[in-house]
Order: sequence, then structure tokens, then C-alpha cells
Amino acid sequence: MTDKSGGNVPDLSGRLEGGEHCLHQRVYYEDTDFSGIVYHARYLHFLERGRTDYLRCHGVEQHTLHTIDEEGLAFAVHHMDLKFVRSAHMDDILEIRTRTIKATGARMVLEQSIAAGGVLLTTATVTVVVINRHGRARRMPDDLARTLLEAKGA
Amino acid sequence: MTDKSGGNVPDLSGRLEGGEHCLHQRVYYEDTDFSGIVYHARYLHFLERGRTDYLRCHGVEQHTLHTIDEEGLAFAVHHMDLKFVRSAHMDDILEIRTRTIKATGARMVLEQSIAAGGVLLTTATVTVVVINRHGRARRMPDDLARTLLEAKGA
Amino acid sequence: MTDKSGGNVPDLSGRLEGGEHCLHQRVYYEDTDFSGIVYHARYLHFLERGRTDYLRCHGVEQHTLHTIDEEGLAFAVHHMDLKFVRSAHMDDILEIRTRTIKATGARMVLEQSIAAGGVLLTTATVTVVVINRHGRARRMPDDLARTLLEAKGA
Amino acid sequence: MTDKSGGNVPDLSGRLEGGEHCLHQRVYYEDTDFSGIVYHARYLHFLERGRTDYLRCHGVEQHTLHTIDEEGLAFAVHHMDLKFVRSAHMDDILEIRTRTIKATGARMVLEQSIAAGGVLLTTATVTVVVINRHGRARRMPDDLARTLLEAKGA
Repeated sequence: MTDKSGGNVPDLSGRLEGGEHCLHQRVYYEDTDFSGIVYHARYLHFLERGRTDYLRCHGVEQHTLHTIDEEGLAFAVHHMDLKFVRSAHMDDILEIRTRTIKATGARMVLEQSIAAGGVLLTTATVTVVVINRHGRARRMPDDLARTLLEAKGA
Repeated sequence: MTDKSGGNVPDLSGRLEGGEHCLHQRVYYEDTDFSGIVYHARYLHFLERGRTDYLRCHGVEQHTLHTIDEEGLAFAVHHMDLKFVRSAHMDDILEIRTRTIKATGARMVLEQSIAAGGVLLTTATVTVVVINRHGRARRMPDDLARTLLEAKGA
Repeated sequence: MTDKSGGNVPDLSGRLEGGEHCLHQRVYYEDTDFSGIVYHARYLHFLERGRTDYLRCHGVEQHTLHTIDEEGLAFAVHHMDLKFVRSAHMDDILEIRTRTIKATGARMVLEQSIAAGGVLLTTATVTVVVINRHGRARRMPDDLARTLLEAKGA
Repeated sequence: MTDKSGGNVPDLSGRLEGGEHCLHQRVYYEDTDFSGIVYHARYLHFLERGRTDYLRCHGVEQHTLHTIDEEGLAFAVHHMDLKFVRSAHMDDILEIRTRTIKATGARMVLEQSIAAGGVLLTTATVTVVVINRHGRARRMPDDLARTLLEAKGA
């Protein structure tokens, strides 16, 4: 694990089960709003944590992609279709699931869901594209493309 | 204007133009991430500010809906289809546009967009439903339904 | 563990070591800003997660306090003295430490710190007060006061 | 005004009154939490918007500082002393006031406050330092130092 803490830390990165990644995250004060439930945009944070740790479990850390070559590489969300089925509440533990359903040259389509206590809260279909540090589309390095294809295939 | 500041403040609530609401908002540090551009989930904050001030310009303030009767009333986002076309940057001024394309008993469909300097950045189709303080669907009071229908018709 | 997931989840709540609580949290995209490092206000989120799980490890969950009696009870931050010594970065694992240095009737003073890889990033002295659901100071129930005193004493 | 919108926008940057900067900002859903009031860390966002627009009214935009020379320049918060006196609520309009009380080589001390409807909510004493893109202290360019001294003197 490539963290600065020397490894003597709990497993914060979730785990792969078959081709699917599963991450648990707590709902804190910051995630709620005055209507008493989780603010809708916060689910996108939880989904992004899921995607980040899904990549991490495949050996890809995003801060290293940022300086991978002169151009730099980042994943940018291009399209999202989101269904908010039920609401999460303060102190809930969320289960975030992520899997790839399509991976081509510079584009991936991911299916994600958030549940609490076995009850589905949110589903998302997310298209991410590969851009350089100036925000323009770029080609994916071969080994990264291979890793992501393997992630899909798994 | 129903604010606590006594009215001696700039117009923060945007304006209605035909049936469409237009709101300007600045991009600050908090909205950006280490890739150098605005974090994707932040666009949902800007869109929500647009919807809130669209309602405000029709005389509806959300903290008063919260205690409108014993049940309480809130708008909850049920579905979003989001296209992230281009990125916003630190210090940009965003133009957020909101209009209703459907308003029925307990459900509204809104079309929204975010642009900067005349360039389209984000589009969203947003379905919101009316819930009570326990998160369950509830009927809309007649005068609120009438206001929202008029908003659509304008 | 009093969560909705039935207990089959990793330990997300940190642990008590002597009288001190220790929680590990990952830095994600959402926490960074365009200067490349973690946005300063985000450290307050990490500190609040630490305080929340410190209470949780003493058997106190905040959503239950909210409806503990007719008045309701919440902890509100009254004063903070914050030193930002070094910066955290994307993908870092943060170690958040929390301990009580004073606990009286309706007020607690906590010492907190955030480190990454053994390097101190942030220190905070935080005074929290007990309020009711209308934002006014209230007395703490005896058993909660006793729990917090024990937490301090440990 | 150096924005991309061509100038046909409302004044979003606040105004200087004597040596003090005053900015009005609305409280939205995103700023509140389930206790019904504004989440404490959000006041730091409002304060940072105030500092950013205070600099902007003195002709300094932060995204240009970021690429001012090879080193890059950013302001980093080094110390904050925060008093949370009263709470803000959904739909409130906040008045954020900012003035410099000390400006030396690479360090500024600012006094800030947030009020709503003439009632003081938060006060902050904020020390910011000048760093380069690698997070290390750097010297301030002479014309920037002169601008900030003038800001203090005004």
C-alpha cells in the first residue's frame, strides 16, 4: 500500500469482490443538510471516493497520474445519470459499489450504487474520460488501458 | 425581499427573464480541486442555488416550507441527468439558468444549465419531488402548486 | 456496533488508546483545491469526524442526542484555535487524534491534531457547548455528563 | 472587472468602505446540517470568499498569482482564531467584513467578521502566509507587497 503512514493503518481502500469494488463510508455532520437527511450532492462525493479506491485497488493512484508525463493525466466525469431512491441519515454506514461496464481508448463507463443496511439509496451510471492537465482529451498510456480493461474483465 | 438584512443589500437572488431564472455565482477556492478545475460535484451546488433562487423569485422560501404545516415540506432531488461539457476555473463567474418543463401534483422537471463567458459548461435535467419531514412523498398545498404551474407557464 | 449494516463492516470508528481517540481518514479529490493541497476548511471536517467518532467510541451517537428529549441536544463549536503547520495532499492517510482537556456542565474543551505519515499537519483547541434544537444553551443530562467526564478522566 | 462574462453581470465582488471590505453572501442548503443551522466549517468558506474578493477589489486575482512566475504564489492560512457567537440559518444573507491589521514581508494578519441582519455571528483573526507551488514560504513580489500595504493603510 503506497501511503505515507507506513502501513500500520486499517484498510481504508475497500476491497474487490469478483469484478466489483466495495467501500464502506460513514455519514458525518458535513454530509447532512437542514432537511435532516444527506445533501444530494454529497452522494457524488461518496461515489467519487468509490471510484478512487476502485482504481487504487487496481494499483492506480490519482496523484501519480497527475504527473505521469509532461501532459499529466486525470479522469474527468463527462456524464452522470443519477437516481436518488432513498435518503441516508447522520451516522449511517454506506456501502458503495463500483464496476466497469465499458472501457475503450479514453473513456470508461461505470455502474455504481450506494446502500445502507442492505437498502438501496442511489444508483449512478458514470462516464469518465481521460484528460490532460489543460482539460483536453488525451490518449491513455498502454499499461493503464490494460489495467482498466482487466478491471472490467475480472 | 424577505431577508434579515433589512433590504440594504445587493440583489443576490438573480432575476426572471420570461419563464427562465438567471443567477450569477463566483467560483471560489472551495469549488476547485487539485486537478486545477472545479470539482464535478460542485456544479450540483450551483444548480441547487439556481433552483432555490428560482423559487425565491416566485415568492417561495424553503426554510418556511419546512414548517408550513405539521408534516413539513421539502423538495428532494429524485433524478438527475448531467452532462459535463467544459470545466469552470477559479475566479470564473458562472451563469446558472433554470426553467420548469413539467409540473404535476408532487413532481417537477427542471432544465438547468451553467455557462461562463457565454460558453456552455454543464446541462442538467432534474426531477424533484415533494416530501414531508420524514422523507415520504406528500401532496403539495394548492397555492404552492398554482405558483409552480404559473412559473412553468410564464 | 450500532449501525444499520448489521456489523459486517470494517471498523470505521477509530479506537481509544488511553484517554485519546485515534481515527484514520483518506484524503480524496473533494478535499483538495486548485493550489494542489487540501483546502484549509476541510481540516475542520476531519476534526469533526474525529470528535464524532470519539463520542461514538464512548457510546454516544449524535443523531440520537438530537431527539433525546423534547428540547433536543447538539454539540456546537463555540471557539477554535487552529494552527496549520503543513499541508496534506491527495491520497494521504490522515491520523486524527482527539482528547478532552476540560469537561464542565455544558462545555468541553478538546485538544485535536492531524498528522500524515508521522508528520504533524494541524493542531486545534476546540471548545464545544451543549445547545438545544433552537440553538440555546441547555443543561447536559447527568448520564451524558458522567460519560464525558469519564472520557476525560481515562 | 476582469471576468469572462463581459461585464454585464451584477457586482459579485463586494466593495471597499474605508479600509474594510464588505461582501454579501446567501446561505444555501449546502451550508446547513441536520441540526438545522449552518455547519461550523462553512463559515471558513464564507471568510475565504471575503478574503478572495477583498484582494480582487485591490486588483489581485488568485488564479493569476498561481502562475505569476516560475515558483507560483498562493496565500495559505497559517493560523485562525475563531469565535462562533451565534448561528446562521437557511436563506440568511451574510455580511462578511475583512480588513488587514498587519502586513509584513510574507505574512498578513486579517480581522474578519460575519453578521446577519446586523447581528454578529462569527469573528476570526486569520494569519496568511505566502507560499510557492510546492508549499514552501516565498518572498512576495514588490508590487504585490505594496498593494497589500496600501490595503492595510487605507
